Amino acid sequence: MVTATICTIGDEILIGQIIDTNSAMIAKELNLIGVKVNSMISCSDEKDDIITTLSNALKRSEIVIVTGGLGPTADDITKGALAQLSQSRKFVENKTQLAIIKKLMKARGIAMLNVNKLQASVPEKATVIPNRVGTAPILQFEFSKSQFGRKNLLFSMPGVPFETQNALPQVISSIRKHYKLSDIIHHTICTFGIPESTLTKTIAKWESALDKNIHLAYLPNPILGVRLRLSIYGVCKDEGKRIIKKSIASLKKILGDNIYGEGDISPVEVVGKLLLSKKATISTAESCTGGLIAHLFTLVPGASQYFWGSAVCYDNSVKQKVLGVKQSTLESVGAVSKECVEEMARGARKKLGTTYSIATSGIAGPSGGTPDKPVGTVWIGVSGPKGTKSICLGSKSTREINIKRFAASAIDFFRKSLINNEI
Amino acid sequence: MVTATICTIGDEILIGQIIDTNSAMIAKELNLIGVKVNSMISCSDEKDDIITTLSNALKRSEIVIVTGGLGPTADDITKGALAQLSQSRKFVENKTQLAIIKKLMKARGIAMLNVNKLQASVPEKATVIPNRVGTAPILQFEFSKSQFGRKNLLFSMPGVPFETQNALPQVISSIRKHYKLSDIIHHTICTFGIPESTLTKTIAKWESALDKNIHLAYLPNPILGVRLRLSIYGVCKDEGKRIIKKSIASLKKILGDNIYGEGDISPVEVVGKLLLSKKATISTAESCTGGLIAHLFTLVPGASQYFWGSAVCYDNSVKQKVLGVKQSTLESVGAVSKECVEEMARGARKKLGTTYSIATSGIAGPSGGTPDKPVGTVWIGVSGPKGTKSICLGSKSTREINIKRFAASAIDFFRKSLINNEI
Repeated sequence: MVTATICTIGDEILIGQIIDTNSAMIAKELNLIGVKVNSMISCSDEKDDIITTLSNALKRSEIVIVTGGLGPTADDITKGALAQLSQSRKFVENKTQLAIIKKLMKARGIAMLNVNKLQASVPEKATVIPNRVGTAPILQFEFSKSQFGRKNLLFSMPGVPFETQNALPQVISSIRKHYKLSDIIHHTICTFGIPESTLTKTIAKWESALDKNIHLAYLPNPILGVRLRLSIYGVCKDEGKRIIKKSIASLKKILGDNIYGEGDISPVEVVGKLLLSKKATISTAESCTGGLIAHLFTLVPGASQYFWGSAVCYDNSVKQKVLGVKQSTLESVGAVSKECVEEMARGARKKLGTTYSIATSGIAGPSGGTPDKPVGTVWIGVSGPKGTKSICLGSKSTREINIKRFAASAIDFFRKSLINNEI
Repeated sequence: MVTATICTIGDEILIGQIIDTNSAMIAKELNLIGVKVNSMISCSDEKDDIITTLSNALKRSEIVIVTGGLGPTADDITKGALAQLSQSRKFVENKTQLAIIKKLMKARGIAMLNVNKLQASVPEKATVIPNRVGTAPILQFEFSKSQFGRKNLLFSMPGVPFETQNALPQVISSIRKHYKLSDIIHHTICTFGIPESTLTKTIAKWESALDKNIHLAYLPNPILGVRLRLSIYGVCKDEGKRIIKKSIASLKKILGDNIYGEGDISPVEVVGKLLLSKKATISTAESCTGGLIAHLFTLVPGASQYFWGSAVCYDNSVKQKVLGVKQSTLESVGAVSKECVEEMARGARKKLGTTYSIATSGIAGPSGGTPDKPVGTVWIGVSGPKGTKSICLGSKSTREINIKRFAASAIDFFRKSLINNEI
């Protein structure tokens, strides 16, 4: 399998000032064409450091992709390092890129300086891929086996994410011309409701029976649940798809409604689609989740078609005034109770006039709680035309994570109640 | 200077499925204590690959920080690699972490499985730093000079970002105990209301007059505004504090109420303190921000003392039913208008019974809007015993960022109106 190393250059990455998003963007594209990324490295803006890092990368991988350090300023010295690595004895001016630079400067109304002109100057061993959206050209170098022990292809791209994104298709196309590549297929199955450790055990038999070409990864997230990623290597696309389809079918028999979707989808998006298909609407009544469920719903474009609103009732007086929770309920069993969340859920449906509702009441911490209802306790209620249901769950983490888990669990409880026709 | 290499482990990074945010988070903290990060590496979930990567890192840097690959599942094999690297002959069970795992599983209502128990089992050469928010412990290893050519400290942390974030202070504290690090004083001044590019110009003169030992960094964030971090190197603590105090005093004269605080504080925390000091309460009426302002308020422990609730009124019917917005207002000037947010703000105060209120109505995008009110337009209203005020602002970004900016701007507008006695 053809392998690649991605190198991002720049002190701003090493001091944590910016998060490197280029590597993931490049890796995704390489994966899609069947190139395996075996490592990603960020190094400083020092010439020796760049040379050492790139030499090691060239020894390890057929393809090396470099971003960053190509600007006109003094701290950008990737090009000098590349000249040395490629044993270029001189720099040559690239006419095509020079014309682009002139055009860009004119469009921006900036006078052409010598530093700008210098950007069109490249090591003699480089093949130039013109960069039409920025001043620094994309450079391609080929190394013979005698240099780093294997035939290599190295690309150097600008590091500004928008320019990297623009340059990437040309780099990918050049890689495809150089190598006979096999396919990799990735497929993600989204689950909620079973913690990672239990899930491992639940699907152990299924996992061990997986096709030998499949690699399985667990991706846990408090809002998204545990996503399972199947990667299949070394088989043709059609065969790969067939194998994955079969694996998913058998997994569905084990996990049932704990699977909420496939691919890049979130639980609120799934719920949104269900509501749209039923031409139904939803509201929330949130105590401990403090508006997070509403926020998650409204992050999805077009949510206004089914999400009508929320009564965030942090104070008990609001539970009574807005949702009509009874004084006697609060006095007898308290706000964190089955009775209260069910009254809240029914109240939200009625007051906000929606088909369905979700309600939460719990103790997010860090302080509060009683032996009976410790920090981390949450009651979740859901209501619809067929009735009202509730559940009590627990979480033992920081306030922030508890709130996230409460919200995500409430959305999941609603989804399951809805698809099982219970509300 | 003490150097560090950060290694993130996981195929999900190499295939570009997730963006590595841990490295930047860790790098920031190391920088703050004067440790220089000289490289960041991501490698696969393969044992040999992990061992090679970590060996090289240990040869290069005094400190190596590893995240990822510590879960209970079969694809997490960092611990085995660390056992081999540290020449541990056996695994030992750590009682403290085992107790935490039991507690966590119980709180989550999950039966304890063997895979969970195994997480408390660590290579004998490891020192355990308990992880109180997750099942995998933080491991610390010390290597003598004979192993990798220098005395090393290696930390292995869980890779789930919230667990990494939680583990980091303990790792940083352990590093501080091991090395004599030079004094660096950091002081953050929190501003809101002036975009980064304008701020640079506004304070250019102040910046150029700063003491030569001060390094200034701009840290922009849609929720927190632009925080200015002053770092002062190479002077004693008292002298450093004196210099910083003087610099802040002169900055306050330039920025006025655009400075909302100093240090690690958020705008909602500042507002919360102001409300507590006035023994006042607040509610929100949120259309376009969909509950985010309520969520931000309720993330702060103890928010129930002053935050009473929110009416998230995504659909216009909810604006009318819950907040009493007039049909005629919606018909004549629409929901995204001065009149509507002011009615919403007054309605929230009245309906939820609070001293103050904040209301938002706008167009988050990506679709919607008109030439008059394009995507990114937001009206913000605030109301209190002295009256009601409103403002119209714009943002031109993604839906998610627009929503964040709307919410943060609303909180800031409220803070300024409150401290200037306008509502």
